[in-house]
Amino acid sequence: MMAVLGENRYGKAEVRVVRVDRSQEPHGIRDWNVSVSLAGDMREVHLSGANDQVLPTDTQKNTIYVLAQQLGDVEPEVFALALARHFVDRQPGISRARVQLDSYGWNPIGPHSLVRSGDGIRTVTVVHDEQSGSWVLGGLRELTLLNTTDSEFWGFARDDYTTLAETTDRMLATSVEARWRFRDADYDGGDWAVTYDTARQALLDAFTGTYSYSLQQSLYAMGCRVLAEVPQVCEVRLALPNKHHFLVDLSPFGLPNHNEVYLAADRPYGLIEGQVLADDAPEAGPAWS
Amino acid sequence: MMAVLGENRYGKAEVRVVRVDRSQEPHGIRDWNVSVSLAGDMREVHLSGANDQVLPTDTQKNTIYVLAQQLGDVEPEVFALALARHFVDRQPGISRARVQLDSYGWNPIGPHSLVRSGDGIRTVTVVHDEQSGSWVLGGLRELTLLNTTDSEFWGFARDDYTTLAETTDRMLATSVEARWRFRDADYDGGDWAVTYDTARQALLDAFTGTYSYSLQQSLYAMGCRVLAEVPQVCEVRLALPNKHHFLVDLSPFGLPNHNEVYLAADRPYGLIEGQVLADDAPEAGPAWS
Amino acid sequence: MMAVLGENRYGKAEVRVVRVDRSQEPHGIRDWNVSVSLAGDMREVHLSGANDQVLPTDTQKNTIYVLAQQLGDVEPEVFALALARHFVDRQPGISRARVQLDSYGWNPIGPHSLVRSGDGIRTVTVVHDEQSGSWVLGGLRELTLLNTTDSEFWGFARDDYTTLAETTDRMLATSVEARWRFRDADYDGGDWAVTYDTARQALLDAFTGTYSYSLQQSLYAMGCRVLAEVPQVCEVRLALPNKHHFLVDLSPFGLPNHNEVYLAADRPYGLIEGQVLADDAPEAGPAWS
Amino acid sequence: MMAVLGENRYGKAEVRVVRVDRSQEPHGIRDWNVSVSLAGDMREVHLSGANDQVLPTDTQKNTIYVLAQQLGDVEPEVFALALARHFVDRQPGISRARVQLDSYGWNPIGPHSLVRSGDGIRTVTVVHDEQSGSWVLGGLRELTLLNTTDSEFWGFARDDYTTLAETTDRMLATSVEARWRFRDADYDGGDWAVTYDTARQALLDAFTGTYSYSLQQSLYAMGCRVLAEVPQVCEVRLALPNKHHFLVDLSPFGLPNHNEVYLAADRPYGLIEGQVLADDAPEAGPAWS
Repeated sequence: MMAVLGENRYGKAEVRVVRVDRSQEPHGIRDWNVSVSLAGDMREVHLSGANDQVLPTDTQKNTIYVLAQQLGDVEPEVFALALARHFVDRQPGISRARVQLDSYGWNPIGPHSLVRSGDGIRTVTVVHDEQSGSWVLGGLRELTLLNTTDSEFWGFARDDYTTLAETTDRMLATSVEARWRFRDADYDGGDWAVTYDTARQALLDAFTGTYSYSLQQSLYAMGCRVLAEVPQVCEVRLALPNKHHFLVDLSPFGLPNHNEVYLAADRPYGLIEGQVLADDAPEAGPAWS
Repeated sequence: MMAVLGENRYGKAEVRVVRVDRSQEPHGIRDWNVSVSLAGDMREVHLSGANDQVLPTDTQKNTIYVLAQQLGDVEPEVFALALARHFVDRQPGISRARVQLDSYGWNPIGPHSLVRSGDGIRTVTVVHDEQSGSWVLGGLRELTLLNTTDSEFWGFARDDYTTLAETTDRMLATSVEARWRFRDADYDGGDWAVTYDTARQALLDAFTGTYSYSLQQSLYAMGCRVLAEVPQVCEVRLALPNKHHFLVDLSPFGLPNHNEVYLAADRPYGLIEGQVLADDAPEAGPAWS
Repeated sequence: MMAVLGENRYGKAEVRVVRVDRSQEPHGIRDWNVSVSLAGDMREVHLSGANDQVLPTDTQKNTIYVLAQQLGDVEPEVFALALARHFVDRQPGISRARVQLDSYGWNPIGPHSLVRSGDGIRTVTVVHDEQSGSWVLGGLRELTLLNTTDSEFWGFARDDYTTLAETTDRMLATSVEARWRFRDADYDGGDWAVTYDTARQALLDAFTGTYSYSLQQSLYAMGCRVLAEVPQVCEVRLALPNKHHFLVDLSPFGLPNHNEVYLAADRPYGLIEGQVLADDAPEAGPAWS
Repeated sequence: MMAVLGENRYGKAEVRVVRVDRSQEPHGIRDWNVSVSLAGDMREVHLSGANDQVLPTDTQKNTIYVLAQQLGDVEPEVFALALARHFVDRQPGISRARVQLDSYGWNPIGPHSLVRSGDGIRTVTVVHDEQSGSWVLGGLRELTLLNTTDSEFWGFARDDYTTLAETTDRMLATSVEARWRFRDADYDGGDWAVTYDTARQALLDAFTGTYSYSLQQSLYAMGCRVLAEVPQVCEVRLALPNKHHFLVDLSPFGLPNHNEVYLAADRPYGLIEGQVLADDAPEAGPAWS
């Protein structure tokens, strides 16, 4: 048996950069957590420790700050594309760069004051590959939604270990993690802010508007809605934890509980994952790698 | 040397209860994390393990669910008061109860749909004591605020280890943790929702409106504002981490940085803690215990 | 454009099961966090919400407890294999099951007393597929290692944004996340405990014993060592954050710092990911999916 | 109503300092997270923002690194005492300093290699006050212990909401948080490492050796044991969450469960807090503030 090096990548993770735009009031801010991952001809550093193909992760961090200054007040997708291309275009040994970015929201409460919002974090993933070009995934996570009704769960498969009661009225809550793939990383007049807002609203609308017989059904509806509302998107991937809210049994105390008092459980939780595609979606290439 | 038992208390922590109000649309929810702590004549259980004075923490949990059903859609202060008094009034061995409650906010996005807000968690602390009566602390935490300007820091004390540069324009960011003590736990026509909203707005206004030469100054202004806006409150305690945003030095790259690109640091952080009182504030008794 | 359902799976995540073995002293315990993910013919539930192919995640949770009782005091790999096969073999609609398990370590401190260890969490991943059979990944995470010396970093690539100084003596610290693929899920006389201990020791030995010119070199050495020491393993994947320890500059205070006083940084951090394979490694199939 | 400033303090929190001792093999390390809090005449900075009494928190951070270099390889109690006294002795406006320190353990696995241990974090708190002198609290947290048997819970108080069944054989698990107060901050020949090890062992022994009818009983036994084994200590405070392990009901599946299969619950949990004192314990002064 001989050992061989397989896939590998390296980079700087979680660079926290904040950019203030003072050109108008209220001041705007971009508050990002940026991670870079580079791949290329890295055989030698693994085998002998020779670093001549290794651009230090410290340099990657510096580059994030430099581009934040140079690019100005741009959408995170624009920033991530420029950053990924920078490394592949400039650095001989690098053939692929992946940028992953979290964008934290802030709401103005004065001409130069803001309060951080907490209803979801916008995410961007860009992969730029020497061969196959650029790929953009928009997304969000930690968007917690709840329907107090219009959710049922019954008619499910049963085996010897099934004890769950059927229900025709339950709470349905989840913390949405969604990513959507753009057909074209450089779509004409790309207005990334509009596509983000539209996709986010589509997720809210589909979750809210679906009379649900299973969380899978809601997931599929959410994916379809994003595809329908944002034509630039060709694929949606969703991970939806079922944040169980169990009706508390108050009968030992002689009390009714007409869907009023619930126990919000932590663990375990259901976890529903799925992918919804446009039937004409192009190949994903390394987009999700 | 003889060992003696000192102060002690016990209870159930972090009971997650959600109550839905379906009486109107949009449906309302109360989403709480409730902790109970009881004290009294607990000498015997410590010394011999005899539990006859020990109301099980499991019973405390049940009681939270029972009261959630019985009290209906009430403000968290009302719930916490009723819960604390329940234990002291009904249980012979219990002379003091402390209830600590986190209330998570949700915003309606449909007649029976909600999205969880993330800009701060409302907190309530109630202490009910057989002797001294009831004490209510309102509060909030995880409310993250930022001023992009109107903050200076200079003229500070210096010693041999001081290297910090003075600045006349810095970012000032913090995550507010505040608690405020009510003069009277049963104030006439107590509208706890209004006092909460008013206190929260006072914190925002004072942070936003203070041209700040130090975070201590902002803290004091925030405490004063709550006292001024909510006359039922006689004391405010604040803990304000200084969430440092350091200007990135781009000079090695020949680039300016006119207060545009910042590094958001995690650790270490400054931590400013202070108390602001009305000059006629009554004694706090066991309120903060 | 038509929307189509792509890959999907669902299951119960983070079922916390603890099994006590009282057959000998000191008592043994298995303390696990088990997640199940099932895939199969789930088209209908996504499109219409019809659940007749959906074995409830609640049933999956029950099954974990049932098998914990029935299988007795077995290694986590044995449990995960039995659990994954259970679902695929018994449930018509399920063609693939994935079980992910964290195993927390405890050290005996008495005949029936234990203290939880914190130097790494053992992980197991099993995929059982109707077509391709069973796949086992052993692993660990949160094993934090540090070399105070024998690490250099110099001769790296440079560009306009490189400011990092070269060093011939630095601290090297990481938190190891490793997973290793077994050639055969049912290897003869499979002694999973021995392979785990051997692989863990190989990681420690290679990290400790490598005079390192880059973390990539250490990573590769660690992968090779596992392959060499555990012949049942054909592939190792590692993710190694570079937990930076920066030498503090004490020169402003007229003090030397001969590699004595360091600042342990949180973010950002380097992140090195790589795969090391035996040259005769069989195809991985769905093992890593 | 006039607002007045009450108690206040400020400082730098969570300074991560690592000190390597290369004087012998295996190399030793001190891995600490240090927080400083200073109080004194801080009226002016709160009222007007005038900072001339304010030693910057940045300077406090620098001082931690300077003292780490100057003091060398000392126990954390020695470091914390020196640090607290430094600020009070040197800085006119400061009358009290509080230092809180977490010390992470590492075990050597080679002459200059270590693996981080995870079975508890050692803590130190020092308060130095201009008037009343120095106070030292030793301690630990996140030490997770479990007895598989020798724990009962019955004969407890009951009310209308009590449903808990009595048990004569349950698992008892907790995550110990303990702090112990030294009679004298400068005790003769103070060997802080020995007192720490002895106190930790006393906690383990008492938890393990107590046949327990309630967690309060175990808590009291643990406090007494520390007092008995470490005569320099005059007070112990403990917070013990009851990490519930519920026996899983397997009867729906026709299976027994003779104390074998448990569900480890997260929330809610019992929380037992108590203080054990030597009958001749001196006043605590500001030690716990």
